[in-house]
Amino acid sequence: MPTVTIDDVRAAAGRLKGIAAETPLLESARLNERLGARLLVKPECLQRTGSFKFRGAYNRLAAMDPAERARGVLAYSSGNHAQGVALAARLFGVPATIIMPSNAPQMKRANTAEYGATVILYDRERENREEIGARIAEEQGLTLVRPYDDPWVIAGQGTVGLEAASQCRAVGASPDVALAPAGGGGLIAGFSTAIRDAFPACEVYAAEPEEFDDTGRSLAAGTHQSVVAGASSICDAILTPTPGQITFAINRETLAGGVAVSDDEVLAAMATAFRELKIVAEPGGSVALAAVLAGKVPVAGRTLLVVVSGGNVDAGMFRAALDLAA
Amino acid sequence: MPTVTIDDVRAAAGRLKGIAAETPLLESARLNERLGARLLVKPECLQRTGSFKFRGAYNRLAAMDPAERARGVLAYSSGNHAQGVALAARLFGVPATIIMPSNAPQMKRANTAEYGATVILYDRERENREEIGARIAEEQGLTLVRPYDDPWVIAGQGTVGLEAASQCRAVGASPDVALAPAGGGGLIAGFSTAIRDAFPACEVYAAEPEEFDDTGRSLAAGTHQSVVAGASSICDAILTPTPGQITFAINRETLAGGVAVSDDEVLAAMATAFRELKIVAEPGGSVALAAVLAGKVPVAGRTLLVVVSGGNVDAGMFRAALDLAA
Repeated sequence: MPTVTIDDVRAAAGRLKGIAAETPLLESARLNERLGARLLVKPECLQRTGSFKFRGAYNRLAAMDPAERARGVLAYSSGNHAQGVALAARLFGVPATIIMPSNAPQMKRANTAEYGATVILYDRERENREEIGARIAEEQGLTLVRPYDDPWVIAGQGTVGLEAASQCRAVGASPDVALAPAGGGGLIAGFSTAIRDAFPACEVYAAEPEEFDDTGRSLAAGTHQSVVAGASSICDAILTPTPGQITFAINRETLAGGVAVSDDEVLAAMATAFRELKIVAEPGGSVALAAVLAGKVPVAGRTLLVVVSGGNVDAGMFRAALDLAA
Repeated sequence: MPTVTIDDVRAAAGRLKGIAAETPLLESARLNERLGARLLVKPECLQRTGSFKFRGAYNRLAAMDPAERARGVLAYSSGNHAQGVALAARLFGVPATIIMPSNAPQMKRANTAEYGATVILYDRERENREEIGARIAEEQGLTLVRPYDDPWVIAGQGTVGLEAASQCRAVGASPDVALAPAGGGGLIAGFSTAIRDAFPACEVYAAEPEEFDDTGRSLAAGTHQSVVAGASSICDAILTPTPGQITFAINRETLAGGVAVSDDEVLAAMATAFRELKIVAEPGGSVALAAVLAGKVPVAGRTLLVVVSGGNVDAGMFRAALDLAA
């Protein structure tokens, strides 16, 4: 089983230097006061393409054999990984084919196409994206860029943690607890690797939607667990049925556990991000912030580091959050 | 006439180091492509208190005689300067009294009170805030912190430009044109001082609402001009009747001119900031971005630096912008 070390994350940071944005570390005096804690927020919605996914995608392409890369890459994604791969491919001047569910948010479909990728839509209920992807990749000689179960992708996402750790030190903060959203677990695997290296005593939690708490339940059970049929959530970016193989092998070593939040808690967190942090957070990107605001982890007197992982949200969904901010 | 030099701005940066947030410099590949230009955005909505105003307020208090500061400070403001002074006073542990129009956005009134300031409301149509402020300041021995016509305040706001110039260099960009919102002209005076020092060939423009284009018209006329009675705009943060004395003396030396935008252009810019930059921009904070997006300055082939100066906007107004993003 391949794994990912802090050296892999550092190497990824070297490849991304001057390419990925260094997102800031945000803090709100009023939020701190309300929580009775120090809350530091890493807003990856401000990353290129509007989510952290660009980091892993670019690192994967950068590590690829140039001749292989030149033939083109393929990805399946509900939208954020799609945009990350599309922009990374464009920066390397190679073609990208993206397989997206036909019910992905309109903004994510349009943006992916605008980066120059070829978008192929599939029916999330009836078709299997892995099968479609494997067939097209073979037919066209493309290299599949997996959304999370890939060491280079995980190492790339880990640079979120490396950067945040350095920024925490710069403001004299040593987080007691750190949380990031988890779908397949690529972000939280890389993030926790970097955070635990910098702050060995910090407890790191995966945050998930209530009905998609497969990582949390898998950690508790010690073996892969899956979501139940018919599970639903507004968090389109992180609706993964079960943890990845490589990611879970890492996460069972690095994580303290999982926390889960409801759709209403997610919308409330998006509203708080609007009011207090002035950032646009998408539902799946807001689950870790939601877990803190809803008291899913003890906060009093502690320093918390939270990743808001993306901001690609349609106006209609954002309006639903604003209704809670009025 | 006191003025402000680049050394004053550098001294302010020293006082603000580790206190003010270093806001990032944002860039969107898709926005660049649509404009046929390189657009760099400095999002001061991510600054503490949600606007650049904290920089000037803190610099003013930091430069004050400690005994004078301990007696307390007073400010009049529609909201952003209020919050900046309230938080700065709180960090120094001194009392703040803020005089705000009774029709200021609810969020700005609530936030100012939450920072611990005493808020006094006045009727914008019938009462004069300068008179009220002068009376209370005298009665209570408070020091007035002017919103823009003060060298320390201007120098503090200038750190937006100092920081942006350094960030431009880090990404290999040399702006041909730079724009920032203008009300009384404090931000644009400090900003242009720093930008013209770093990039002497850069043209700097003040951006204003169409009916509040007093800085632009004053620059064109060479003397102070005022807005006409009954002028209206959604840009509550920058509704100032005429340029300040100190600010205009600086701006007539540093600025290439003024550009003005309509309310609809402002709402469209807020929607673009939501979609493409994932930041929450308030109407007054969006006028410079609106000017670029609406083609008020030539953009083709150029590098543009734009300040989005604040993000303190109520949900209702933000919804009006989202209606344009659907």
